[in-house]
Amino acid sequence: MSEHDGLVSRAKRVIPGTMYGHMSVQRMMPEGYPQFFARAEGSRLWDADGNEYIDLMCSFGPMILGYGHPAVEAAADVQRRLCDTATGPAPVMVELAERFTAGISHADWCMFMKNGTDATTLCLTLARAETGRRKMLVAKGAYHGSDPWCTPTPAGVTDEDRAHLIPYRYNSLKSLEGAVEEAGSDWAGLMVSAFRHDAFADQELSDPEFARRARELCDAGGAALILDDVRAGFRLSLDASWSELGVQPDLSAWGKALANGYPISAVAGSDRFRSAATQVFATGSFWYQAVPMAAGVATLAELQACDAPRKIERSGLQLRAGLAEQAARHGLSLRQTGPVQMPMVLFDEDPDLKKGFRFCQEALRRGVYLHPWHNWFLSTAHSEADIERVLEVTDAALAAVRSESS
Amino acid sequence: MSEHDGLVSRAKRVIPGTMYGHMSVQRMMPEGYPQFFARAEGSRLWDADGNEYIDLMCSFGPMILGYGHPAVEAAADVQRRLCDTATGPAPVMVELAERFTAGISHADWCMFMKNGTDATTLCLTLARAETGRRKMLVAKGAYHGSDPWCTPTPAGVTDEDRAHLIPYRYNSLKSLEGAVEEAGSDWAGLMVSAFRHDAFADQELSDPEFARRARELCDAGGAALILDDVRAGFRLSLDASWSELGVQPDLSAWGKALANGYPISAVAGSDRFRSAATQVFATGSFWYQAVPMAAGVATLAELQACDAPRKIERSGLQLRAGLAEQAARHGLSLRQTGPVQMPMVLFDEDPDLKKGFRFCQEALRRGVYLHPWHNWFLSTAHSEADIERVLEVTDAALAAVRSESS
Repeated sequence: MSEHDGLVSRAKRVIPGTMYGHMSVQRMMPEGYPQFFARAEGSRLWDADGNEYIDLMCSFGPMILGYGHPAVEAAADVQRRLCDTATGPAPVMVELAERFTAGISHADWCMFMKNGTDATTLCLTLARAETGRRKMLVAKGAYHGSDPWCTPTPAGVTDEDRAHLIPYRYNSLKSLEGAVEEAGSDWAGLMVSAFRHDAFADQELSDPEFARRARELCDAGGAALILDDVRAGFRLSLDASWSELGVQPDLSAWGKALANGYPISAVAGSDRFRSAATQVFATGSFWYQAVPMAAGVATLAELQACDAPRKIERSGLQLRAGLAEQAARHGLSLRQTGPVQMPMVLFDEDPDLKKGFRFCQEALRRGVYLHPWHNWFLSTAHSEADIERVLEVTDAALAAVRSESS
Repeated sequence: MSEHDGLVSRAKRVIPGTMYGHMSVQRMMPEGYPQFFARAEGSRLWDADGNEYIDLMCSFGPMILGYGHPAVEAAADVQRRLCDTATGPAPVMVELAERFTAGISHADWCMFMKNGTDATTLCLTLARAETGRRKMLVAKGAYHGSDPWCTPTPAGVTDEDRAHLIPYRYNSLKSLEGAVEEAGSDWAGLMVSAFRHDAFADQELSDPEFARRARELCDAGGAALILDDVRAGFRLSLDASWSELGVQPDLSAWGKALANGYPISAVAGSDRFRSAATQVFATGSFWYQAVPMAAGVATLAELQACDAPRKIERSGLQLRAGLAEQAARHGLSLRQTGPVQMPMVLFDEDPDLKKGFRFCQEALRRGVYLHPWHNWFLSTAHSEADIERVLEVTDAALAAVRSESS
């Protein structure tokens, strides 16, 4: 038995289903994907058997500057020698709060926590606390976390957990207006993702008209416009993602890439919600941990210094153009949707994801880690040479898909 | 302006109410308490102005072996050079799951997450998923986290968030039986803290008869017995805390001290709930982070090697005996409740906490960090000499309280 298979069989005994959540390979991925990784560096991962991959998932988002980025690790090391989790926060918390709010146009204040779900849940609670109302508009199929109010799986969830959620269709003015009408005088807020990044589906960039109308409706109705930037944050913009459309939210939820893999998420808010933020009791044992905050300061500085969204965009354009050319050459119909920094690649006529699975498996065994039904993530650590190598591999993988289809 | 006051005035601008949650000094503590800490080592903290304290709060629990414990830091360092947050977990996750479940009698499996609230919420969800029922019995005044279903503050919470919670009185058989009757055929589970450790109140050790009856009722009703060991875990026992009473839960929630300050929490469960645990989708961006898991392995090894609960108990007995002698000598009536490892100290005839505040302030300015209305936490890093020094300080602090009272 390989080192890796040994780990899987041991895990099976002590971890339900071998692994849980979005990192469960057994439930999420085609056969052959590694469950455990022994090492990570820059744009590369090594599984427990020593196989090397160029990683196009970036930990599902957190890794934005490359694994083990020297400046981030150096800042974390300095703070670690002083203190980390303690009986109060460290001075670096103020530094991070200042730097973070300075970069986010709508932010007058911020709070830090651990999970993306902590941030979206706090936004929901703040909207209710400030408005004294209950209804929250949430796009059908959007992922905002895994608490009972938002988890995509019904097990253990009660009807009451979602009692005051009203669904709308992303980018549909008509659907949004209908939901606003349904909420009526009990309308607390509207939650929107930075773009439509639902799993298993073509991604949709936000329609600027939809974004502007969302802002107008919230203003007219006194409701909170909440931007969920947990997944997309810092890949599309150094500001809140909707800033690129000229629309500012009242509250925004952040996480993932904020500290290049160190565990921290955040809520940013405008002054209108400051008083609510002093009334809501939200906290956690590790929320004041200093090392991720020091890593966050270094990450924000680095993201700004290299204009990360534009740098990652260049890699994304290179990848998208290469894949489009290859698909055409192989006679395969392939849909690349969403922003190029977070590519989603799906095949036409692939209802059971057979083509997508084969494509990813072929790439995997050639050393490129892709995902068949979730958006990928690029980082500043992906060099032009990395993308060239990825494209060599996808060319071979597409050839394999074509040979199977024909 | 001092370094520290400068930080506070900067924080006021960018953090709601200067600080939030249980680490907000302004809302939680007497005047004069420091909000920011520059350094921590062993049993000691230094605030941002360089003042040194013996810390009897231990980060509100996480620090159980002392800040910067060499063996824990060494294990974390080794893992950090390999990988931390990545596109999958590291082998050390299996090692931690094996070691953790091996030490917990009722545990056949476990899952790891970030917040204590994540763990209690998942237990609630697992109980509902497995039983197909909804009602959860929760003790009045007990703290199980800060999500809308359990936060002690009503701001932003809807009635539906607590629709299926039924209150009972901790240690009261009659109250528990009434709650079970009220839940009827919709009874999913019973949540119990390791002992009654409510803030502002005398603590209560679990009555063994109450614990046994809770187990019997859950067995008879097919409901899940959930032990919230987030706060008490590893200070009372190396096993689940109710093991000391001979009672095993079905599910237990852990956090705080599991990795000596590194951010990780856990749910442990029996085989009956394994299938539910594969159905519930609970996850987070940083839940698979490897460094806290490596720190957890080292922490568990160290806790076992030094029999931490007994070692901490000796410090607790020394402190309790010393305080009792001092209070008697000063003619002050002082209540020390709960397990000695997690002391709660309240004054008689102190409805506005004036005595408690004065006591803590006097201790603080002499270099001992205490809390006036929350249980304290001792650790293996508190030496006999540390406790002697604490007692010198409390003697002077009690003298000051007496001089004010008389």
